Amino acid sequence: MNLKTQILKIAQEAKKASYGLVKASTQDKNKALEKMAVGLLKAKDALIKANKQDLENARKKKLSSAFIDRLTLNEKRIEKIASDIKDVIKLQDPVGAIIKTWQRPNGLLISKKRVPIGVIGIIYESRPNVTSDAATLCLKAGNAVILRGGSESFNSNKKIVEIFRAALKGMAIPEEAIQFVSTTNRQAVDELLKLNDYIDLIIPRGGEELIRKVTENSRIPVIKHYKGVCHVYVDRFADIDMAINICFNAKVQRPGVCNAMETMLVDEKIAKKFLPLMIEKFKSAGVEIRGDAKTRKIVVDIKSATEADWYAEYLALILAVKIVSGVDEAIEHINKYGTHLSDSIITENKSNACKFLNEVDSATVYVNASTRFTDGGEFGLGAEIGISTDKIHARGPMGLEELTTYKYVVVGNGQVRK
Amino acid sequence: MNLKTQILKIAQEAKKASYGLVKASTQDKNKALEKMAVGLLKAKDALIKANKQDLENARKKKLSSAFIDRLTLNEKRIEKIASDIKDVIKLQDPVGAIIKTWQRPNGLLISKKRVPIGVIGIIYESRPNVTSDAATLCLKAGNAVILRGGSESFNSNKKIVEIFRAALKGMAIPEEAIQFVSTTNRQAVDELLKLNDYIDLIIPRGGEELIRKVTENSRIPVIKHYKGVCHVYVDRFADIDMAINICFNAKVQRPGVCNAMETMLVDEKIAKKFLPLMIEKFKSAGVEIRGDAKTRKIVVDIKSATEADWYAEYLALILAVKIVSGVDEAIEHINKYGTHLSDSIITENKSNACKFLNEVDSATVYVNASTRFTDGGEFGLGAEIGISTDKIHARGPMGLEELTTYKYVVVGNGQVRK
Repeated sequence: MNLKTQILKIAQEAKKASYGLVKASTQDKNKALEKMAVGLLKAKDALIKANKQDLENARKKKLSSAFIDRLTLNEKRIEKIASDIKDVIKLQDPVGAIIKTWQRPNGLLISKKRVPIGVIGIIYESRPNVTSDAATLCLKAGNAVILRGGSESFNSNKKIVEIFRAALKGMAIPEEAIQFVSTTNRQAVDELLKLNDYIDLIIPRGGEELIRKVTENSRIPVIKHYKGVCHVYVDRFADIDMAINICFNAKVQRPGVCNAMETMLVDEKIAKKFLPLMIEKFKSAGVEIRGDAKTRKIVVDIKSATEADWYAEYLALILAVKIVSGVDEAIEHINKYGTHLSDSIITENKSNACKFLNEVDSATVYVNASTRFTDGGEFGLGAEIGISTDKIHARGPMGLEELTTYKYVVVGNGQVRK
Repeated sequence: MNLKTQILKIAQEAKKASYGLVKASTQDKNKALEKMAVGLLKAKDALIKANKQDLENARKKKLSSAFIDRLTLNEKRIEKIASDIKDVIKLQDPVGAIIKTWQRPNGLLISKKRVPIGVIGIIYESRPNVTSDAATLCLKAGNAVILRGGSESFNSNKKIVEIFRAALKGMAIPEEAIQFVSTTNRQAVDELLKLNDYIDLIIPRGGEELIRKVTENSRIPVIKHYKGVCHVYVDRFADIDMAINICFNAKVQRPGVCNAMETMLVDEKIAKKFLPLMIEKFKSAGVEIRGDAKTRKIVVDIKSATEADWYAEYLALILAVKIVSGVDEAIEHINKYGTHLSDSIITENKSNACKFLNEVDSATVYVNASTRFTDGGEFGLGAEIGISTDKIHARGPMGLEELTTYKYVVVGNGQVRK
């Protein structure tokens, strides 16, 4: 079978399975998930063996030790994946909810009802746990899923899918609801992205280059999870202790994630008081500061920020700092340089807070809290498939509800249009 | 200025204007719309003059009289466009609504708030009233709009935009919120579709080829309004009089629109009773019937349907008819050949009705009503920008609410992540 036929077959099988999934009850889906979790624990030796092949290949390719660590599956990590599936079981099923109902003067009863999207393609880089996360979240929301993982975790991903599909045998959920692209040929992705008759949504998870490539080539709608250039703006009316605490948290608590602060904006009216204290604290935690000219007049022994720094997602203990004339300049800077993900203002002034919350064009905007809360778990949405930087369909943390769409169900008793 | 620079400038101006629009109140927007309607009426002579140029060109190109009719603007039609704007003024502003609010155990107050999308590009074919519809609906939902109309109505479209922008001078809405691609060069569209940094959504309105071209080339999310291959399925438990009445309405009342029936599916158990009566009624209205082999055994003097007929959107007094073994085969046929827009079952049996409503994968599904109700006005949503055949973001009739997105607004008092 050539590649094109192989990918087409996968997509067609997934579409067919998605029609089967529409008939599944919440209980059907939870039972299937339960069996998948049990299957994973039972087959952990086989999975560890498959993972070893990936690890060997990774060592041969001299991939970094951080990469190899993320790639590694051991007993404990497999138990964690299984326990994550149990968390998905506990999540409320969004499917079937009536969003609204109304009656028309002609008697038609119209309901807007939440339904699965259909078939979702997930294209991701190399952490095998994503295979399980993506499959189980899509399935709980009633969708068939096509998984295309990174080549480095190919054997682990393949084994996880084998285990899941074996678990689905004899259950109400067709095993074809979980599809795996079982080739590392890059052309497979190009073929997949053409199949808009069978695939309803593509979610790429990975680096900027992957996302850009998918977006440029896809005929299927794509929801992007781009990088996070997040800001905290310390307003002239900020409580200084609170500002120091929040900025420190936003930068230092976990610098390698998309909702960490990358640029700190400081109102010129508070800069002299705030910056020396703040920067001292950052320095003691090993944070490299890159300041604009005004900042460097107040704190002299720091590096100079260039235009490129305002666009930078460091994902490291580096922070760009800029002094602005007030809330308007802060908003302008964030809308221009930011990635519209997670931005915060620290202020005790209601009018500035409202202005910032209203005018900053980001998925999540905060007053007096850390940008680090932008996360499905922290929002109480449960597990998330990612954090969307798009505005269409899903914005910010993308949970089960965002993996659904709606349909209009109209009940009549003979109505015709006049 | 070369084309690339010209299109980039348009997109950048629109983005900037969209940030201004976020600050506008409902009253600001309604006042602007009011002035635009008044402007249109005041300048109707100039608009009719501009339209005359388009009509002359159309006649030179020997375009069809139906086309020329749709292109024509006269006093009455301009008054209709102005009165449509007044209807948009009356629509409820969706922006600012709080979709939900909840508090987290750590005290963070999270609100999901409805906000404008930002910049919307509308690429449409040749009816000048679309220029006004698209601009006013986008503006009411707080969005800047980039209009790219068909070359045949170029002069009319340009004049309408000039009138609108003149009306916005001195108002709270920046005139740059309405942008017009003032060239008929086709490359302009390709340039537009690359500008995902400035444009948030593209809505193509027109024929299949236009939509396909836009979808294949766009880096910006696209919401498609494809064709409608709609079905009515007459179940064995149908009330025959009701079935005849609804099928006739769905096919004949206005055959040239996307929510008209194109294929009628009939349960084999009711075919002998239903089909002779139904087809006679269709024939008396001039409907050409194309039936499958089973249908032609019951009603002999009709044409034979081929595989291509099941995919066909006739938009004319032609109907494909197929006899199926029951509700399951009907659902399978609709999901395979349909365009997922508007499909109806006629039945008095609750279980078959529920099955159909649940398993037919369409934007709107009906029991005992005509497919022709799939329309923003008929649904009570007010004016619509189109009827989406996509599943992502908007499905079915797309009104003001579907021209918005949401953001999370989070209010804290010093919370940091642990």
